[in-house]
Amino acid sequence: MTPLRNPRLIGFAALDGIARYGVQDFFEGCPRAAAAGAPTSVAAVYEGAAPLPAGTGMARHAARLPYVSFPTLGEGDTPLLPLPPVAGLGALWLKRESANPTGSHKDRMSPLAVARALEVGARGILASSSGNAAISAAAYAAAAGLPCRVIVTPALTEAYRRAIARTGAEFIVCRDSLARWDVAARLVRDEGWFPLTNHLVPPVGSNPFGVEGYKTIAYEIAEALGTAPDAVLVPTARGDLIWGIGAGFRGLAAEGVIISAPRLIAVEPIPRLTRVLAGEAAITDAFPGATLQFSTAGGTATDASLRAISDSGGTAIQVPDAAAAEGQAALARLGFDAELCGGGAHAAIGMARASGALREGETAVMILTAGSAREPAGDPLPPLAVTEGA
Amino acid sequence: MTPLRNPRLIGFAALDGIARYGVQDFFEGCPRAAAAGAPTSVAAVYEGAAPLPAGTGMARHAARLPYVSFPTLGEGDTPLLPLPPVAGLGALWLKRESANPTGSHKDRMSPLAVARALEVGARGILASSSGNAAISAAAYAAAAGLPCRVIVTPALTEAYRRAIARTGAEFIVCRDSLARWDVAARLVRDEGWFPLTNHLVPPVGSNPFGVEGYKTIAYEIAEALGTAPDAVLVPTARGDLIWGIGAGFRGLAAEGVIISAPRLIAVEPIPRLTRVLAGEAAITDAFPGATLQFSTAGGTATDASLRAISDSGGTAIQVPDAAAAEGQAALARLGFDAELCGGGAHAAIGMARASGALREGETAVMILTAGSAREPAGDPLPPLAVTEGA
Repeated sequence: MTPLRNPRLIGFAALDGIARYGVQDFFEGCPRAAAAGAPTSVAAVYEGAAPLPAGTGMARHAARLPYVSFPTLGEGDTPLLPLPPVAGLGALWLKRESANPTGSHKDRMSPLAVARALEVGARGILASSSGNAAISAAAYAAAAGLPCRVIVTPALTEAYRRAIARTGAEFIVCRDSLARWDVAARLVRDEGWFPLTNHLVPPVGSNPFGVEGYKTIAYEIAEALGTAPDAVLVPTARGDLIWGIGAGFRGLAAEGVIISAPRLIAVEPIPRLTRVLAGEAAITDAFPGATLQFSTAGGTATDASLRAISDSGGTAIQVPDAAAAEGQAALARLGFDAELCGGGAHAAIGMARASGALREGETAVMILTAGSAREPAGDPLPPLAVTEGA
Repeated sequence: MTPLRNPRLIGFAALDGIARYGVQDFFEGCPRAAAAGAPTSVAAVYEGAAPLPAGTGMARHAARLPYVSFPTLGEGDTPLLPLPPVAGLGALWLKRESANPTGSHKDRMSPLAVARALEVGARGILASSSGNAAISAAAYAAAAGLPCRVIVTPALTEAYRRAIARTGAEFIVCRDSLARWDVAARLVRDEGWFPLTNHLVPPVGSNPFGVEGYKTIAYEIAEALGTAPDAVLVPTARGDLIWGIGAGFRGLAAEGVIISAPRLIAVEPIPRLTRVLAGEAAITDAFPGATLQFSTAGGTATDASLRAISDSGGTAIQVPDAAAAEGQAALARLGFDAELCGGGAHAAIGMARASGALREGETAVMILTAGSAREPAGDPLPPLAVTEGA
């Protein structure tokens, strides 16, 4: 298909607001910020009023996205469901992003980035991921008829591996996460592959055309509630998702569709943003720590995630794996299957109430990023013993 | 929650149309048919005109379901997506049921059956399944605050097992599929557990309150297309799904919403319905044959599945595992992740064109029942070898 770029898209601005650019690619983030040693991403700038939403799925909000037509697998329009309010909240909602085509929020990013790759005639799609971003990139590359290379580590689970392989994507296997960046950089700079994910240290985040797609989560929440919630809890690694949700709400507030944007609460498995916010580390630092919260693991943070928090008056909460497992079990007992970091978002609610980051009677939304089915499983289970009918 | 029964529901009729009953439970199908040795299920009967659909999700069509409020996890409203038409079809659509809360179409059945269990004050929910029905039953029982027992075999995959266990459901492990029926029958008859799935040989199918939910697939397809397709391809084991889809379209045709109901094409992994239609076997026979198409495996068929085919002028097509794997790969190369029997539905299209079951220029819909992530994986893959950056 031939993607149709949004005629309202007039360019990009660095997240620090200083530099402005035309419509172009930013494989290494804002050039001026990179040159200054303070890497940051860029965000799309539009002019003129957007027409009212129309249609179904993420395309319903295409007038506020960089492309008004793009390869689709039926992403977006995910359910927003009430949960029993905990810890004195007035209302608690769950945004079930696992309903997306490949099972995660990443499916709001991939189609817009792939649309850009189609427009510029890229050789193919490149993703550095052993998880949700990889399967999403591979599926949308397939939908667009583009070759795809996925840079993984040997930790890739069989369930991801089989599903990605069937799309026709090619694996490049690196020994660990950090070893991937040099390989990705070479494929982008020298061989013309179009990157959907970050390949820099310090990172700038994923493709900015793609990240725009996360704004639609804010649009759908505001439509469903008829207003903005007080706060949104977002499992966060390098912060594409929390940045995009924040950008969506800020845009609605600027247009007067909502009165004010919600506070964004980043939920992280190891201390990264929490340390930066406490003045103990710089955003460009490396952050040590191991975690089973697969989808939000990693030793880096981004300017985008910090700005999303600060711009919204929010904060970050670190949820250890044991607490995330309790949150995952609490969601399961309500009928919701969540990957471990999604359980972390539920566990963070009580912690946020205790710290004052959430206040009594407030309305909060938690993002359930994905289900558990493909996640690395931890210790093998003992065989099931026959209990009846033997 | 307290489910609200639809005041338009006036009773149930046996699928042979002869026997009529009030609103009651039918844990062993139509009593008269059972006594006559020709087991069949029952279907709900409504009176009066249904109001127009309103709202979101499966509840949008609640006026045509046995309950107008029921425990919900955001089921229904799944995307209907265009596929490249193959084999001379005029149009081909994919109904992506994997978008449902626990990842399959079963989530249209569970909430309505669980609503009935709540209404009658059942002790808890019982499901005999090691797959999609099990995780769906466990999740909706949890959502309703009811205990759940799941009768499985040691073949239960770790991904299903972990997710089901987290809901709080209890496992009963039987040595094989057939050994489950006696255990289930005892729990239903003697201990007051409410069955969502079949426990009889020959089978009658799943809970008739629940099966009504599958009608909403027909409603959503007709709404999205503005008409009925010529044919719908349905992965079929004991036929709850194909029966429900057929009932939905027949109802729309009777109301004049669509001109005529589509032909239903059952897609099966081993010869069952194909043998019955060829006059080589009776519907109550046991059908031998092994298959990797996990969700449509099993050695039995039902009166409901045969009637769904016959009433619609459709047929059955047997798709061997190798062809289903080709269909699964063909869908993956378009970006769609499917369990193996979903691949079978795609593979069946070419076979249906060759046999004349689908005609040139027709519009067909294939049901993608679930994704691949939790399916038994077949042979283990060799470890991934590092190829770059070592």
